[in-house]
Amino acid sequence: MVIVGLGLIGGSLAKAFTKYTDCHVAGFDTDPATLEEALACGAITKAGDDCDLAGADIVYLCLYPQADIDFVKTHLSSFQKHTVVTDVCGIKAEVCRGLCALAKEGGFTYCGAHPMAGTEKHGFSASRADLFTGASYILVPCGAPEKVQELLRQTAFALGFGRSVSTTPEQHDRLIAFTSQVPHALACAYVMSPRCPEHRGFSAGSYRDVSRVANINEVMWSELFLDNRTALTEELDTLLKNLTDIRNAVAENDHDKLEELLRQGRLVKEELGE
Amino acid sequence: MVIVGLGLIGGSLAKAFTKYTDCHVAGFDTDPATLEEALACGAITKAGDDCDLAGADIVYLCLYPQADIDFVKTHLSSFQKHTVVTDVCGIKAEVCRGLCALAKEGGFTYCGAHPMAGTEKHGFSASRADLFTGASYILVPCGAPEKVQELLRQTAFALGFGRSVSTTPEQHDRLIAFTSQVPHALACAYVMSPRCPEHRGFSAGSYRDVSRVANINEVMWSELFLDNRTALTEELDTLLKNLTDIRNAVAENDHDKLEELLRQGRLVKEELGE
Repeated sequence: MVIVGLGLIGGSLAKAFTKYTDCHVAGFDTDPATLEEALACGAITKAGDDCDLAGADIVYLCLYPQADIDFVKTHLSSFQKHTVVTDVCGIKAEVCRGLCALAKEGGFTYCGAHPMAGTEKHGFSASRADLFTGASYILVPCGAPEKVQELLRQTAFALGFGRSVSTTPEQHDRLIAFTSQVPHALACAYVMSPRCPEHRGFSAGSYRDVSRVANINEVMWSELFLDNRTALTEELDTLLKNLTDIRNAVAENDHDKLEELLRQGRLVKEELGE
Repeated sequence: MVIVGLGLIGGSLAKAFTKYTDCHVAGFDTDPATLEEALACGAITKAGDDCDLAGADIVYLCLYPQADIDFVKTHLSSFQKHTVVTDVCGIKAEVCRGLCALAKEGGFTYCGAHPMAGTEKHGFSASRADLFTGASYILVPCGAPEKVQELLRQTAFALGFGRSVSTTPEQHDRLIAFTSQVPHALACAYVMSPRCPEHRGFSAGSYRDVSRVANINEVMWSELFLDNRTALTEELDTLLKNLTDIRNAVAENDHDKLEELLRQGRLVKEELGE
């Protein structure tokens, strides 16, 4: 296996391969200290080079979207016909378009993916072998053959993933705008309240849960947000509208309207069995 | 001890008294089945009556705000001079005003409180002895003597609370609008997205955390929201403004602005050491 980029996700993949499989992992990272740390703790067996790319069964691209594309461009001649290239980007339309074009040009197979796992921390130091336990592994095949999809799925299950779904880049990005991007935008907007620094002693689980992911890597998330700006803008508009409805019912002291709005929220959760 | 109302909080107080102290608990509840369940599992030693109110050291009012006031009005002649009456309401200005007036009239001592604990479930069946472990116990003394405050604080620590803060009703309500009410409004607004029912396989911790408290008791929360409508409207306006800023940066593809907004969120969390 080759893993390109030993941040939270790449580092965790490396550690999971080492813990749960017999695979040898060659790792790329532009930071020498990270490479050294990954070697020292046994997460990778060697620092990757072009020979590793040429010999790899699967190459996991674990950089930011544009950096993934740039990496493949730079090393295009090293990728072989038998190699399966996949990525872990949180947004798929842009990166799938770029990598599909390069796969055609370079003659390798590309199959997009998005491991639905993470924490509010980032970097190799936050990575851990059990990050993916029970998580969902989203495949975005973009026309990759079924046997390639099956290879990636079975490899994911070996690393601890609990389920896998397949979808198109567009549907992926619409759903991720809701399930992941909106909560991150929300967390940042929430903690900007002038009340936030005074919360200690007056807060419990609700504050903790909504604010958790405000501890954001703003460089990565800005890129992810803007790569998905149509779907994300639409989701944020939906949320702003629904939240404004609740705000107006409160401001206007409209008890029946408020109770009806809150009931709708409860019913959605109940119907989902959550 | 007397506990009036054996819902999530009252039931948990009863169970905590039974588990962690030698106190006998007499419980009031308008639902005979709840009283029976509480007796059967040993959470209370008897169904409460006016003699229990007259003999109690502390009476915990655990109903909704207006119902707490109504209960005391109805049983006013039973409350004695030595009795300390407290409550557990999530909003204080209204309930403190009502109960302070009744304390004057009835000659007992009132000291408001708000145990910062809860779950997205409600009712006696969701109550548990360990609900308060490590939680914050907010005191809203409204002029109650220090020895009364100390009695309530020490009792709270015996039940597992981890800290206690004291404040005025107004400051309490301003902070709670931010730490507790906004997250509940938000959770309901969030799950109303048409994307929500499709989230399975595409979601992880962020979705779970933001949506958790949408499983709301809309009757109780509507009352709590409207009892605090000035502070809550102000907090919702702050959030709507901050979220709109992020939305506009995304829609206008303004990378620098977006990164700056997300950075602000991260810095708040970092400065709080969270």
